[in-house]
Amino acid sequence: MASPTPATHHALSIDMSDLQQKQSSDQQEFQLKNQSAKWVLNSPDPPGFGQHMFDMIKKNVCPQRNSIPSSASSSPKKQPLSSHVIALLTFVFPVLDWGRDYKASKFKNDLIAGLTLASLSIPQSIGYAALANLDPQYGLYGTVVPPLIYSVMGTSRELAIGPVAVVSLLIFSMISKLVDPTVDPVSYRKLVFTTTFFAGCFQALFGLLRLGFLIDFLSHAAIVGFMAGAAIVIGLQQLKSLLGISHFTTKTDVVSVLEAVAKSLHTTWYPLNFVLGCSFLIFILITRFIGKRNRKLFWLPAISPVISVILSTLIVYLTRADEHGIKIIKHFKGGLNPSSVSQLEFNGPYLGETAKIGFICAIIALTEAVAVGRSFASIKGYNLDGNKEMLAMGCMNIAGSMSSCYVATGSFSRTAVNFSAGCQSTVSNIVMAITVFVSLQLLTKLLYYTPLAILASIILSALPGLIDYNEAYHIWKVDKMDFLACAGAFFGVLFASVKIGLLVAVGVSFGRLILNSIRPGIEELGRLPETDIFCDKAQYPGVLDVPGVYIIRLNSGSFCFANASPIKERITRWATKENEKEEGNKPTNGIILDMSSVMSIDSSGILALEEIHKKLLLRNIHLAITNPRWKVIHKLKLAGFVDKVGTNCIFLTVNEAVDACLSSRSIDNCL
Amino acid sequence: MASPTPATHHALSIDMSDLQQKQSSDQQEFQLKNQSAKWVLNSPDPPGFGQHMFDMIKKNVCPQRNSIPSSASSSPKKQPLSSHVIALLTFVFPVLDWGRDYKASKFKNDLIAGLTLASLSIPQSIGYAALANLDPQYGLYGTVVPPLIYSVMGTSRELAIGPVAVVSLLIFSMISKLVDPTVDPVSYRKLVFTTTFFAGCFQALFGLLRLGFLIDFLSHAAIVGFMAGAAIVIGLQQLKSLLGISHFTTKTDVVSVLEAVAKSLHTTWYPLNFVLGCSFLIFILITRFIGKRNRKLFWLPAISPVISVILSTLIVYLTRADEHGIKIIKHFKGGLNPSSVSQLEFNGPYLGETAKIGFICAIIALTEAVAVGRSFASIKGYNLDGNKEMLAMGCMNIAGSMSSCYVATGSFSRTAVNFSAGCQSTVSNIVMAITVFVSLQLLTKLLYYTPLAILASIILSALPGLIDYNEAYHIWKVDKMDFLACAGAFFGVLFASVKIGLLVAVGVSFGRLILNSIRPGIEELGRLPETDIFCDKAQYPGVLDVPGVYIIRLNSGSFCFANASPIKERITRWATKENEKEEGNKPTNGIILDMSSVMSIDSSGILALEEIHKKLLLRNIHLAITNPRWKVIHKLKLAGFVDKVGTNCIFLTVNEAVDACLSSRSIDNCL
Repeated sequence: MASPTPATHHALSIDMSDLQQKQSSDQQEFQLKNQSAKWVLNSPDPPGFGQHMFDMIKKNVCPQRNSIPSSASSSPKKQPLSSHVIALLTFVFPVLDWGRDYKASKFKNDLIAGLTLASLSIPQSIGYAALANLDPQYGLYGTVVPPLIYSVMGTSRELAIGPVAVVSLLIFSMISKLVDPTVDPVSYRKLVFTTTFFAGCFQALFGLLRLGFLIDFLSHAAIVGFMAGAAIVIGLQQLKSLLGISHFTTKTDVVSVLEAVAKSLHTTWYPLNFVLGCSFLIFILITRFIGKRNRKLFWLPAISPVISVILSTLIVYLTRADEHGIKIIKHFKGGLNPSSVSQLEFNGPYLGETAKIGFICAIIALTEAVAVGRSFASIKGYNLDGNKEMLAMGCMNIAGSMSSCYVATGSFSRTAVNFSAGCQSTVSNIVMAITVFVSLQLLTKLLYYTPLAILASIILSALPGLIDYNEAYHIWKVDKMDFLACAGAFFGVLFASVKIGLLVAVGVSFGRLILNSIRPGIEELGRLPETDIFCDKAQYPGVLDVPGVYIIRLNSGSFCFANASPIKERITRWATKENEKEEGNKPTNGIILDMSSVMSIDSSGILALEEIHKKLLLRNIHLAITNPRWKVIHKLKLAGFVDKVGTNCIFLTVNEAVDACLSSRSIDNCL
Repeated sequence: MASPTPATHHALSIDMSDLQQKQSSDQQEFQLKNQSAKWVLNSPDPPGFGQHMFDMIKKNVCPQRNSIPSSASSSPKKQPLSSHVIALLTFVFPVLDWGRDYKASKFKNDLIAGLTLASLSIPQSIGYAALANLDPQYGLYGTVVPPLIYSVMGTSRELAIGPVAVVSLLIFSMISKLVDPTVDPVSYRKLVFTTTFFAGCFQALFGLLRLGFLIDFLSHAAIVGFMAGAAIVIGLQQLKSLLGISHFTTKTDVVSVLEAVAKSLHTTWYPLNFVLGCSFLIFILITRFIGKRNRKLFWLPAISPVISVILSTLIVYLTRADEHGIKIIKHFKGGLNPSSVSQLEFNGPYLGETAKIGFICAIIALTEAVAVGRSFASIKGYNLDGNKEMLAMGCMNIAGSMSSCYVATGSFSRTAVNFSAGCQSTVSNIVMAITVFVSLQLLTKLLYYTPLAILASIILSALPGLIDYNEAYHIWKVDKMDFLACAGAFFGVLFASVKIGLLVAVGVSFGRLILNSIRPGIEELGRLPETDIFCDKAQYPGVLDVPGVYIIRLNSGSFCFANASPIKERITRWATKENEKEEGNKPTNGIILDMSSVMSIDSSGILALEEIHKKLLLRNIHLAITNPRWKVIHKLKLAGFVDKVGTNCIFLTVNEAVDACLSSRSIDNCL
C-alpha cells in the first residue's frame, strides 16, 4: 500500500527515463571537480549484520582475555592452564591481587575506619530495617554477610556495604502491595528474601553479560529528582516513629501519609516520642556541623548516632519512659545469621512480581553503588570496573538472600564516613562486619530499651545528603527538558509511588531522546568568509550564501520513517517555490544535502531520498549528497540508490559539491 | 548520590586547581592557531526553551496565514473581511478553487471513472461489511456519505473513498472483544459507530493541529509487514463464507481460525459454496491478467466483480441452490442512510476502549489513504497536503458516524481502478456515491440470492495487492533490522492479533531508533592524504595518522545519559593505556574530540565531558573539542564547562585543533 502498484510504477519509470536522458548530459558536466567521490564510493563494506552481532556478543560476553590483569596476559607465548586459572581467579577475586601487597600500616587505618563505620552502621541498619518493615536484626544481618563477600570480590576501596534508605523504601513500598507486612510478616519476609535473590541474580547477570550500560538508563537529572523525592518520602515515613503512631498506612505518597498522620493526631499519639527524637536529631546535626567546620573532628558526626542510641536507651531505661508512651525496640533475636534458603519461594503466586521488583531494586542499588563508588574512585585516581562491581554486588546479594539479609548496596553516607576515616581497602568492610557480628552476639539485649524515635532521627539526619538543590538549579539553568525529567521523577515519587516516579523519569528521558533524534531538523549552510568551511547560517550569522546553490544539512542522527517525510516535504516545497520564481531572480542550479550528521538511514529514508531526487529532476535542479557516513553510503549502494541517481551526485565535501554545481551552471549559462 | 558530597567536591577542586595552574602556561601555548574559535564562542544564543515551544505551537496550530491560496494572500495591502472569509472557505473546501475551472470534457472522464468505480465498490463494500461483521447495507452506506464529503474537502484527485479491508478487520477484531457481534449485534453496531466518531474526531484533530507526522510513526518496513499479515488474516476470514461454515471464531490469529475451520470440517460444511467461490475467483483473476496484458481492457478487471455477482445471483436464483447449502445474503434494508446519531454511546462502559480503537483506526486509515494518495499525486506531479487530507477524512468520518457508516478511507485497489479509468477530479467519487445511492434504493432486492462465497472471492482477489514480496526482499537486502520490524509486524498480526502486530512494529521501529541514537559509537579519524580533510579510518582505509594526536569523532546524535559513561570510559581507558607506554614510543599530546555529529547534550553528557577533561589533565594530555553544534556549545557555555576548560580548547575544525596540538608539542619538546 505504501508503494504504487506495479502498473503505476511502470508508467512512472517511462516518464522518468525520458527526463533522465534529457538530463544525463547536464549531469556529466555537473561532475567536473568531484575528485574525492571515489573515496566515498570505493570504501570497503562495513561488517555485515551477522558479523556485527557476533562481534558485539563476543565483546560483551567473553571479555576475560582482555580484562584479566596485564601481568598474566602480557606474555605472548602460550601459558600453562594453571596460570590461566590463577588469572581467572584474580579476575573474579581482586583480593588475591591487592592482598599480596597489604601491609600492617594499612590495616591500622582500616581498623579505625571499620570501627567508625560499625558505630554508624548499627543504628542506621536497624533504622533501615524498620523502614523496610522488618525486625531490627535483619538490618544487622545485612551488615555482616554482604560486606564480607564484597570485600573479596569488589574493586572499590571505599564503598561501605549494607542496607540503604532508598532500597529499603523500594522494598517496602512494592512488596507491601503484595502482602501486608502487619498482617502476615512471615510471608512478607519470604517475599523480601526472594526479591533479594532475584536482585542478586540480575546484578550478577548484568556483570557477566557486561550490561553495565543498563545502569546508565536513569539519566543524571532523573536520579537527582528521584533521590530528592525518595528522601522526602522516607522522611515522612519517620513520622510514624517520631509521633509514636501505632496504625500507619502502607502507601508512600505524601497525601496518604499526611492523611494517616492527621487521623492519628486526632486519636492517639505520644508527644514524648517527638520531643526525644527531635532533641537527638538536633544533637546529631550539631555534631555534623562541627565535623564540617573542623576536619580533625570527622569522627564526631560518625559516632554521634551511636552516642544518641546509648544516651537515649539509658534515659528510657532509667526513667521507664516506655510506660509513658515512648515506643521502644523491645526484644529482638541476636546471634549468627540464620539460613533463609528454605524461605526462598519459587512457586508462589507472586513469582513474577518478585522478579520484577528484584529487577528494579537491582538497577537502583547498582545505580547508587556505582555512582558513589565512581565519585570516590575518581578522587583517589583509580578506575572502577562497572561490570566487576555488578558481579560482586550480585554475588553478595545472592549470598545475602540465603542468610536472612535483604538487598544491600553501597551506602552514600557511610561511604563518605569510611573515606573520611581514612580507609585503605575493603578490609574496613571486614572490620565493620565482624564488629556488627559481635554486637549481634552480645549487645541485642542492651538495645531492648532503645526508643524508635531515635532510629527515626538517625535516618532523618542522613536524608539531607540525598537532596541536591544546587544540582537541580544547575539542571534547570542548563536544560529545561532535563529538568522536566528531574521534576517528573520528584513529583512522581512524592505524589504517586516510587515505581511511577521511576517510570516517569525513564519515560521522559527516553521520550526526549526519541524526539531529539527524529526532529526533522534542517540547517541552511553558508560559506565562512575566506575559507572552504561551510557552517550553519543561524549559528554563524556572518557566513555567506553561495548564489544559485542551496546547501542544507540534515540535523538529526537518523534519517528514518519518523522524520523522512517532513524533511522530504520541506525540500520539495522549497524547490517548488524556487520554480515559481520563474527563473527571474537567480536560477538555482543545485541542492546540496550534507549528510555528515546522519548516522543511520532506513528504507523509509532511502525512499524519501529517491523521491526528492525525482522531484528535483523534474524541476531541473541538481541534487548533490555530501559526506555520507559509512553505513549510510553502504545502504544507499545496497538499495540501488547510487545506481539510480548516478555516482556523480555523491561528494566527500560540501566545497567540492559547490564547485561542481557552480561549474555546471556556468556551462548551462553558456549553452 | 550521583555527585560526591560537598566535602569531597572541595577536596577535588583543591587538587585540580594546583594542576590547573601547572598547566595553564601549556594551555596558552596550545592556543596558537585557533583563529576561528571566536566564531564558535561568540555565536548568538539559540532561541530559548519558551520561545522554541511558542514558535513550534504557533507554526503548527496557526498555519492558515501561509497556507491559504496565494491568489488571496499575495497582495500586501490589508484586505476586507469578506476576502479573508473567502480565502478561509477555499482553504477548507478546495472544491471552491478547482470547481471554477471544471469543464464538461473533464466530467465525461469522471462519469466513466465513477461508474466503473461504483461497479467495483458495491460488491467490495458488501464484502468488507461482512468482514466487519455488519449487515451488507452498512458497507453501502459507507460508500455514499463519506465520498460526498471528501469530494468537497479533499485534495487528492484520485483517491476512491469507502470501507477498506484492513480497517474492517481492525474494527471486527477489536470491537468483537468487547461485545460479541453474533450475540448482541445492536450493541456491537453502536460501538462501531462510536468508534467511527472517535476516529473522525482524532483525524480532524490531527489535521487542525498539523500533527501529520503522527502517521509517519509506522515505518515503511512495518507497514509492508503489517499489510501482508493483515491480507493473510483477511483471506483466512473468507474461509467462513467460502466453506459455508455457520459457527466461526471471533479471533483473528491463524491458529484459532484454522482450528475453527478444522472443527467445522468435521461437522457441517457445504462444498458447493467452495466450488462456486473458487470458480468466480479464477474468473476475476483471469480478467485481471487480461487487463494487465492489454491496457485498453482496463475496465474488464474493474467490472468483473459485478459480472460475477450478477451471474452467480442468477445461477443461484435459477437453480434454487440456496436450498442445497449455498449461503446467500438474503434480505437487507435499502433506502437512504438512516441517522445513527442516537446510537453514539458516550456514557457506556466501553467509552475508553472505543476511543482507543478509534485512535488506532484513525492512524491506520490515514496511513493507508495518505500513502495511496501520495503515490498517485506524485505520478500526476502535484503535492498532497497531509494536514488538509486529515481534516477532510476526519470530517467525512464524523459525518459518516452519524449516518450509519463505519470508518471509511482511501482504498488502495479502487483508487488504482479510478486512476486507470481516467478520473480527473473528486467528481468521480460523487458519481460513484450517487450510483451506490440509487442502487440502495432500487437494487437491494435483486441481491437477495447473491451467494456469500462470491463476496469472499471478490475480497480474496483484492488481497494479493497488499502483499509486497519484492519490497520485503528489498528491505531484507538493505537493512536487516528494518526487516525485523517488518517480520515482527507480519508474524504479530498472523499469530497473535492485529493490535499486537502493530505494537510489535512500532516497538521494533522505535527500539531501533533509540539503540541507534545512544550507541556509544566512536570513530577514529585520520587525515586524507594531501588535504585538510579528516575522515573515519575504517571507512577510508587510506587516511593517515597524525603522530601524537588522537582524533575521535562521536558517532551518535545525542551525548546523553545513555551513552555518556561508556564513551567516557573508552576515552579514559585509551588515555591510561597511553600513559602506561611510559612516553617511550610517541608521546601523545592531545585528544581531539570532534563533536560535529552531536546534535544534543544533556547534563550527564556535560558531566562526562568534565570528567574526561579532568582525567586527561591529570595525565598531561590536552583535550580539544571541535565543531560543537549551536545547541551544544550554548549548553556547554551555560553549564560553565567552557569557563572550566578554558576557551582555548574549543576549535571550529579538526585541522585547526591538530595544528594547535602539534605546535604545542613542539614547544613542549623545546622546553
